[in-house]
Amino acid sequence: MDQKQLFRNIIKKHSFLCVGLDSEPGKIPGSLLKEKDPLFEFNKKVIDATARYAVAYKLNTAFYESNGSAGWESLGSTVRYIKENHPDILVIADAKRGDIGNTSKMYAKAFFEKMQFDAVTVAPYMGEDSVTPFLSYKEKWVVLLALTSNKGAEDFQYHNENGTKLFERVLSVSQKWGTLDNIMYVVGATRAEMLKDVRKIVPDHFLLVPGVGTQGGSLEEVCRYGMNDRCGIIVNSSRGIIFADSSSNFDIVAGEKAAEIQAEMAKYLSGKKLI
Amino acid sequence: MDQKQLFRNIIKKHSFLCVGLDSEPGKIPGSLLKEKDPLFEFNKKVIDATARYAVAYKLNTAFYESNGSAGWESLGSTVRYIKENHPDILVIADAKRGDIGNTSKMYAKAFFEKMQFDAVTVAPYMGEDSVTPFLSYKEKWVVLLALTSNKGAEDFQYHNENGTKLFERVLSVSQKWGTLDNIMYVVGATRAEMLKDVRKIVPDHFLLVPGVGTQGGSLEEVCRYGMNDRCGIIVNSSRGIIFADSSSNFDIVAGEKAAEIQAEMAKYLSGKKLI
Repeated sequence: MDQKQLFRNIIKKHSFLCVGLDSEPGKIPGSLLKEKDPLFEFNKKVIDATARYAVAYKLNTAFYESNGSAGWESLGSTVRYIKENHPDILVIADAKRGDIGNTSKMYAKAFFEKMQFDAVTVAPYMGEDSVTPFLSYKEKWVVLLALTSNKGAEDFQYHNENGTKLFERVLSVSQKWGTLDNIMYVVGATRAEMLKDVRKIVPDHFLLVPGVGTQGGSLEEVCRYGMNDRCGIIVNSSRGIIFADSSSNFDIVAGEKAAEIQAEMAKYLSGKKLI
Repeated sequence: MDQKQLFRNIIKKHSFLCVGLDSEPGKIPGSLLKEKDPLFEFNKKVIDATARYAVAYKLNTAFYESNGSAGWESLGSTVRYIKENHPDILVIADAKRGDIGNTSKMYAKAFFEKMQFDAVTVAPYMGEDSVTPFLSYKEKWVVLLALTSNKGAEDFQYHNENGTKLFERVLSVSQKWGTLDNIMYVVGATRAEMLKDVRKIVPDHFLLVPGVGTQGGSLEEVCRYGMNDRCGIIVNSSRGIIFADSSSNFDIVAGEKAAEIQAEMAKYLSGKKLI
């Protein structure tokens, strides 16, 4: 999927919602525990309930890996299920990988070939040759960490050389490695006002914005400072949707929460005259 | 395993060698492909041949993940095999993880509880709360990326605020998060002369040094600039050992290569009067 197609999907669905499948094994409702793969059954129900409101799913590998190889099996089954039933939805591996060239090449192979993800989050610390192996795949995306939503973001991402903070350098240097069709950036919603500075450096790139909801970010502010004339943002919500209800009605409530966010998103898309 | 125990193992074995099990599925000798789990069988043979010369094994998750859930199965079997047969050897997951707090907590659970690794490499970009969840485990280690061995290290790790490079800030800030018994740092052998600067900031921490061999780093220089009075370095070699020979004799040759490096290491330990 390229940038144009992603924008078309946003316009079609009146939504730039990414549902984060941070499916923590310990939080799966009891009613599913008798299933062969409870994690996958949970995801399937969440996907069935939320797909009409979402343009992307983000699977955070940590929650699957906590279950070892069985978790990687659930990860694979979930990607296949989305691909088969909703081929227009972008599937992101929130994996935050990045290593020397020959190793990043293997990660790219793992996530793009073996697991069939469309995108993978990558940490920039190791620089160009740790990122470019992911960029050699057609219609696949690197989602590079720029400014994250957590408190620790301040420890190093603000490290300032002659007025340029590290995350700004990451944005300006890395955009030369790829194109608008294969690089997006993670910018946390908890720092929405910083989106102004981000947009000065990367006016046209898509941004993946986590931190709305449980982490306290405001959707309105994210749209005010981050949206461009091709929308340019995908906003993620994880726990606020998938674990909004812990009963066997979790999927219905997840659908309702996703619908609420989508309705708010439609308002901002309309305000920007994109729909 | 704490720092004291690791030092004792080094003295006992006259070695600070870490064998990197970067076991790329496409490079496994044909003679093993009939086995149920060729990757594990390969590792088992390499371990049997090299364990006497090594104080650590490092399993790079990328190479296993390129095989999907089956790769994670091979990863688990390999860790169990080392734990059962060589309980004195440190087992490192070279995973380069790191995420917001609740996610890093799940990674720590994955690698320390589920998979039983002793140590995991972590990328520092997201700061304190992305690292500390790994530090709450007794006798487990974070191996934090400081200065890596690849060319791209220069892109961001040298970002300089008032004379302090980013990797130096990572070293000085992060050492306050843990102790000499649960933090070590990755410093690439391809930048051996930089070890002088690293040692000014972290004189007593263990360093995990990749990049000797295939990547061009010199063991002699690493020892000259990096060794302290408790050795303080673990030097990794991967491809130069495990893929030194591609025939069915790969394990014998791997053992010979490991023995060669160990003999050289003994010389430096002796020169430093540690053995």
